Amino acid sequence: MTRLALSDADKHARDWFVKTTRDLGCKVTVDEMGNIFAVRAGIKNDKPPTFVGSHLDTQPTGGRYDGILGVHAGIEMLKVLNENWIETEYPVGVVNWTKYDDFQPTPSPAQAHPSLAKKAPAFPSLCPPPAQNLREVHPGTATMAEELSRIGYLGSVPASHEATPMAAHFELHIEQGPLLEIANRKVGIVTGVQAYKWLTIDVKGRDSHTGTTNLVSRADALLAASKMILHSHRLATANSALASTGILNLKPGSTNTVPGHVSFSLDIRAPADETVAKVLALVKEDFPKIAAGENLAGLNDGGTPSLPCSIDIIEDFDSPATTFHPSCIDAVTRAAHRVLGPGSKSLTMEMTSGAGHDSVYTGKRCPTSMIFVPCREGMSHNPEEFCKEEDCAIGAEVLLHSVLRFDRMREVQRVSWKQEPYTL
Amino acid sequence: MTRLALSDADKHARDWFVKTTRDLGCKVTVDEMGNIFAVRAGIKNDKPPTFVGSHLDTQPTGGRYDGILGVHAGIEMLKVLNENWIETEYPVGVVNWTKYDDFQPTPSPAQAHPSLAKKAPAFPSLCPPPAQNLREVHPGTATMAEELSRIGYLGSVPASHEATPMAAHFELHIEQGPLLEIANRKVGIVTGVQAYKWLTIDVKGRDSHTGTTNLVSRADALLAASKMILHSHRLATANSALASTGILNLKPGSTNTVPGHVSFSLDIRAPADETVAKVLALVKEDFPKIAAGENLAGLNDGGTPSLPCSIDIIEDFDSPATTFHPSCIDAVTRAAHRVLGPGSKSLTMEMTSGAGHDSVYTGKRCPTSMIFVPCREGMSHNPEEFCKEEDCAIGAEVLLHSVLRFDRMREVQRVSWKQEPYTL
Repeated sequence: MTRLALSDADKHARDWFVKTTRDLGCKVTVDEMGNIFAVRAGIKNDKPPTFVGSHLDTQPTGGRYDGILGVHAGIEMLKVLNENWIETEYPVGVVNWTKYDDFQPTPSPAQAHPSLAKKAPAFPSLCPPPAQNLREVHPGTATMAEELSRIGYLGSVPASHEATPMAAHFELHIEQGPLLEIANRKVGIVTGVQAYKWLTIDVKGRDSHTGTTNLVSRADALLAASKMILHSHRLATANSALASTGILNLKPGSTNTVPGHVSFSLDIRAPADETVAKVLALVKEDFPKIAAGENLAGLNDGGTPSLPCSIDIIEDFDSPATTFHPSCIDAVTRAAHRVLGPGSKSLTMEMTSGAGHDSVYTGKRCPTSMIFVPCREGMSHNPEEFCKEEDCAIGAEVLLHSVLRFDRMREVQRVSWKQEPYTL
Repeated sequence: MTRLALSDADKHARDWFVKTTRDLGCKVTVDEMGNIFAVRAGIKNDKPPTFVGSHLDTQPTGGRYDGILGVHAGIEMLKVLNENWIETEYPVGVVNWTKYDDFQPTPSPAQAHPSLAKKAPAFPSLCPPPAQNLREVHPGTATMAEELSRIGYLGSVPASHEATPMAAHFELHIEQGPLLEIANRKVGIVTGVQAYKWLTIDVKGRDSHTGTTNLVSRADALLAASKMILHSHRLATANSALASTGILNLKPGSTNTVPGHVSFSLDIRAPADETVAKVLALVKEDFPKIAAGENLAGLNDGGTPSLPCSIDIIEDFDSPATTFHPSCIDAVTRAAHRVLGPGSKSLTMEMTSGAGHDSVYTGKRCPTSMIFVPCREGMSHNPEEFCKEEDCAIGAEVLLHSVLRFDRMREVQRVSWKQEPYTL
């Protein structure tokens, strides 16, 4: 499935979304970032709607569930409400967010680090840079505003939580990881999104001939980098964090030359900001020791002491942890237990999302939570992505009941909630 | 210094070589590979000359000594013989070999492995494939025969030890490593060239999201490869061998994806074939265990057990050890002690060459040895390559005396040497 944001295929899906939600009685608005809001009236329409949302566009070679499931489940919610003549206390809505991974600001920090160019997370959807300042990442030079205009989705409403206030945002999504499947659970109650930092580690030794340079006389940047990659895995294990290297480049790159220069990425993640900060501090403390030739945790055991390498540790990107709203988490929890019935305790689990989502950004402005359903072998961003029909249905039902419960809670609890910084 | 074989710059150097040696009274012949032989008559000219030789062409970004020093020292030898009216027993000669790293057979195994394309060692200069079957490695499509013809050095003499017999071959060369400098020695008496094998190690795991895949659920090909690189260093240390990784490629190559595929080179060297074979056997035994997740030598200590990777170990290239001829080694040894005078024992050392040389190939057909002189910090194949004037002079003098000594030995020892498979 390839349905890049603002492509012709995306226009097709957007047209379908607008027609379908209008046919279901919704009022549809489009903002200047192309986000589409479909709202079904409630009894009291002077307050903002409770929204569900996700995105219909996909990764360059994506699957059929990432994002799409969340929007479809929202439409299913609208249908069920209509078919059962249900009047909600407040309006409810469905959003199709414009995923703008595919566009980048110009000039952007990501362009200074080409390795990041296609992977920088989306900007907070509710306070984005102007669309005319965003340019396509994938081949092409159009700005986002040009492409929105081309497909007819350059709206006039400002892209802002003030122009389109939300009482809450719920998002159903496939897990994109293996934890639910491994634990044999049906529903993940998502309490937040983990923190992460991206680093570039630059190790410099000395190019030398593999045949004429004995081990003692080497400053082997790749051997040092290998020890650091292994050590980062051990640091992650010790701190219940994640550490991953996805990019590694070396120079000069010939079979008979010991590499004098290695540059690699390090992605550190954990549910808490403090954990990520702790692992980062350990990396900053230990990597220079490894480069200098110290025997850290037995890495040098059985090896030959050699010449030191130098090291630079560059912090490229920082995404602090997101904590979802207790009321929304509560709504999801109660909805899940209601949908799954007896034995539901062993079918749900609280979890932290490893990946970013639209809900990370709504969570900055309104009460938010997410619902995860299992996907096969945790695979995502891949045509093999798969979620069972039965699990999609459970997820959609939990989403519906989360919204209904939240709608009722808004009415009942509105006094006590006045302390919250949100407009409920 | 960039003087690629058969370039215009190389033609210039060749023209100078031919004119200079002719002016010194030599008879010059060129074979069909462009090798140039300059021979100075001796008393008995019915036997093959004692040769010295190396190459005047350079690496793409080389220095001023690698190869060039050996040819210049040969010309210096001719001058000294002339200036001192010395008549040798047998003819002596100087060869400028065509270094044909810059040309590859078509189709060649190297082309199937692009990583090797520019680094495959020269073919045995005395039994090469026909020049018309060799094509340029560096940009361009000319065959070697075309380029030889273009610069006027496509000779008619077959490139063969039968057409151009040699009584012996001596080669003066910079060490291209740091051992002489570290040991504070002036002359390396080279007893042979170490054996080496080149491998490609292909590790396959599974691409997965760095944020959503916990450590247990990963098959991280780069973490496995890092352990293997560290382990190969330990195996080399334990067996007094060398192990080096100069190339590493991974896929898919994004900061937030655990790499599912890593391919890296492994260069194993040691003075004895058996040592290289032993390290190879250990690599073949241990690497699959590391890929499978076994805890070898504590590599997994402090880490998280995860999913297995698969592995392929491909043997790309094998160069057995070369042992130089005892008579030539003896000539170099005695010459070195004579040149260096009292205290010479602490100024020389026997050593094995780590890199390949023209002498590796002459060694297959005639008695051969080499003389090494120190180069600064062991640097070579680099514009910073440097050998002190004083050390160049010592090397040239040792070369001269090695040839004179060998010339005398041929006369004295010719009866006992009849058992040798060489025509002295």
